Amino acid sequence: MDKFFNPRSIVVVGASNSPFNIGSTITRFLEYINFDGDIFAVNTKGEDVQGARGFSSVLNLPGSVDLAVVLAPARTVPDIIRDCGLRGIKNVVIETAEFSETGTDGVLLQDEINRHAKEYGIRFLGPNCLGTLNAHERFCCFFGLVPGMYDEVFDHPGTVSYVIQSGGVGALIIDCLRRDVTNVNKMVSIGNKEDLDESDVVEYFNGDSTEVIGMYLENIKNGRKLIETAKRIEKPILLFKVGRTAEGSRAAISHTAGMANNDVILDHACRQAGIVRLKEIGELYTLPKIFTHMPLLKGNRVVVFTNSGAFGGITADILVEAGMQMAVLSPETQEKIRKVGKLFNASNPIDLGLTLSKQAFTDIFEIILSSDEVDALLAIPNVWQQVVIDAIAEFGAICRTYDKPAAIYIPNAVERIISVRTEHRIPVFESPEEAVRALRVSYEHYLGLQKKTRTLILV
Amino acid sequence: MDKFFNPRSIVVVGASNSPFNIGSTITRFLEYINFDGDIFAVNTKGEDVQGARGFSSVLNLPGSVDLAVVLAPARTVPDIIRDCGLRGIKNVVIETAEFSETGTDGVLLQDEINRHAKEYGIRFLGPNCLGTLNAHERFCCFFGLVPGMYDEVFDHPGTVSYVIQSGGVGALIIDCLRRDVTNVNKMVSIGNKEDLDESDVVEYFNGDSTEVIGMYLENIKNGRKLIETAKRIEKPILLFKVGRTAEGSRAAISHTAGMANNDVILDHACRQAGIVRLKEIGELYTLPKIFTHMPLLKGNRVVVFTNSGAFGGITADILVEAGMQMAVLSPETQEKIRKVGKLFNASNPIDLGLTLSKQAFTDIFEIILSSDEVDALLAIPNVWQQVVIDAIAEFGAICRTYDKPAAIYIPNAVERIISVRTEHRIPVFESPEEAVRALRVSYEHYLGLQKKTRTLILV
Repeated sequence: MDKFFNPRSIVVVGASNSPFNIGSTITRFLEYINFDGDIFAVNTKGEDVQGARGFSSVLNLPGSVDLAVVLAPARTVPDIIRDCGLRGIKNVVIETAEFSETGTDGVLLQDEINRHAKEYGIRFLGPNCLGTLNAHERFCCFFGLVPGMYDEVFDHPGTVSYVIQSGGVGALIIDCLRRDVTNVNKMVSIGNKEDLDESDVVEYFNGDSTEVIGMYLENIKNGRKLIETAKRIEKPILLFKVGRTAEGSRAAISHTAGMANNDVILDHACRQAGIVRLKEIGELYTLPKIFTHMPLLKGNRVVVFTNSGAFGGITADILVEAGMQMAVLSPETQEKIRKVGKLFNASNPIDLGLTLSKQAFTDIFEIILSSDEVDALLAIPNVWQQVVIDAIAEFGAICRTYDKPAAIYIPNAVERIISVRTEHRIPVFESPEEAVRALRVSYEHYLGLQKKTRTLILV
Repeated sequence: MDKFFNPRSIVVVGASNSPFNIGSTITRFLEYINFDGDIFAVNTKGEDVQGARGFSSVLNLPGSVDLAVVLAPARTVPDIIRDCGLRGIKNVVIETAEFSETGTDGVLLQDEINRHAKEYGIRFLGPNCLGTLNAHERFCCFFGLVPGMYDEVFDHPGTVSYVIQSGGVGALIIDCLRRDVTNVNKMVSIGNKEDLDESDVVEYFNGDSTEVIGMYLENIKNGRKLIETAKRIEKPILLFKVGRTAEGSRAAISHTAGMANNDVILDHACRQAGIVRLKEIGELYTLPKIFTHMPLLKGNRVVVFTNSGAFGGITADILVEAGMQMAVLSPETQEKIRKVGKLFNASNPIDLGLTLSKQAFTDIFEIILSSDEVDALLAIPNVWQQVVIDAIAEFGAICRTYDKPAAIYIPNAVERIISVRTEHRIPVFESPEEAVRALRVSYEHYLGLQKKTRTLILV
């Protein structure tokens, strides 16, 4: 798989200088992001295209070519695959659409492609996809990108890698992570996955610098393969799957040629394999930071810690409904907390009131986290004052000291949340529900991991 | 109740020039927002306070005084109430805290206050509250505000009125609505509600310029009164109630001295009274725009309309799980849609693809809304291009023509959503879940209204 993400040379088949040609958006974008490798283009005229040296056929390409990206009309693709085989190109991204998702003719073309690929030992992504993005290597073969669009991604690569079945969702993830503390490592759009599928990619992400794996899937072709793969992987795998209802399934089928899956079976299988199922599409970009910026949650006893009284009750409801527990603090722990300064309430939920210093804020935070009565903190600081921002900037380090996570939500408008998150690199969530979900998802991954580790020991 | 929101003269009892006095924040803020009425202050020295003429006792105040706001130490409040009675002041906001929420002593003080109030025919809000805000009249007696904080509210008053039991939640609502298409009309923080309660306020909002009533409650003292009041009101009443779980209830009790309520009973009662229960605290500020900017939803058949393929399936799942239906479009309607331009899918979910003009966008929008196969639209336009923004700017007017609502979500990062919403005054939601919830809530209010109207006819 590595050549799909780290090619030293790439050809875009179908890139030309015609005004509406979309293949050329790939060569132009690769040049813009300073991709450090050879870029070739193949088109009928054999002409050079912005960023790429031109050839009239794959067969004429010089040197070795690690990756071919195909964006030519569907009916021409089988021959292109054959040519790739003849030329010794073993890795192909077929971005062209209108194959099995459109009916009989498409299915016939697909069969021909599969035959050629098999004959020449070619592995391919797609068709009907965008292919790969590798932020650390400044590589991206998505079509349709405009210079400047993804600067954040390449300038500040992250550690979250994604498998997606929709370019729109991929764009949304990248757009939303621009204002978060974590960012994209790799992303792959797998389309109709006639050859390589989500399991192959997940397996690859397990061996690279990825910390968290996110998946947006419209269908799962080989459930058993995915489950068996996931069972061997200890990194968090977060899955959002369309088609929980019959109506959602039908809509997804027209989009990427999948088959409906039984959602109840999927749910059960995910629990077996330690895959964390997401409930909302946005969780793909909001939740990874609980893994990248906080220790794993290893129990379900949570303390709510706030300077905004109402949020004690509000979050107690959400936590309990999410299957977590309000930790019970002993009189001794409460006494320690009270000694730090005057506060409204020292039992859980802890209401700090409005007058605390930064030091008092972090002292209480530390007393709670160091207690063996507590597994995690849900911190709801209202950031009216700079001292509060200064305090929460230190929460991450304290959490690492005690190896317990805190989910932080600040009850201010979203612009304020984003500015605190971006400027101070604090992993803040955007709603109390999101913060609780993050703790829940961290805990679910921990439980899955326990199961996997036990299985591995037994084996 | 009107004098609580439209006083022509007000006294702040406890406002002084001491460095940490919080009563003076009220007089200063009233002066800053150009409140058009007399402002007096009562303090031991009888000194003037920024924005207010000073007196040493309520008994010495000149002229008639519409409203007294009390922010003096708890033990002094009973005498102040008596003085108000003697002076003929009939409306009082008791902002001071530490009464029945703190134990026996507080309860005794409260009893004394209640006795005086009864004797002199005084109605009061609180204690342990912020009192009232009336954006249209540039009036606000919340303590602790700093000049400049709420400019948006007074410069652009809206039509949503709130009853709250937490200053923090009130501040959050005001902060979040600053970047939305609707804004606050009135807000009242009712605290421990020893006299006036949520029902009295709701009754008052029913007779003023309020379009939507939002409630954040930590307890309900007189459920029957609220239900009977709500049954007479046709404006949407949106209720977020803390204490769905025992843990949440306990936390709320320490905050505003309430009693735990049985949540199942409350749920049933709300359905009887046509009160719409909210699931998340944020819905108090995100959902009102579906009422202020769109016609009511009068059926549950929804068409999803997108230029971002994946969101067809994603939202079909959410809609069906919310108890709505994916509308079935007849071949005739689909044919009409196809005639407008080349698109990916003309059945529900409708996938427009990326190449449509503004006209095609609004034409299809109109075909769907005018069809009697459809009750509402869920529009998910990705706003990469200005033509799309231009098109959705017209959606509201088209919706009014056909008297059917559209919930709009744009799958871009939240800053983009907020900028489209603010600059173009388009009622855009921030997630697909939120957009679906808005439709659901609109429909629930419609169903409740049907029940009320039928009851009224039978009576």
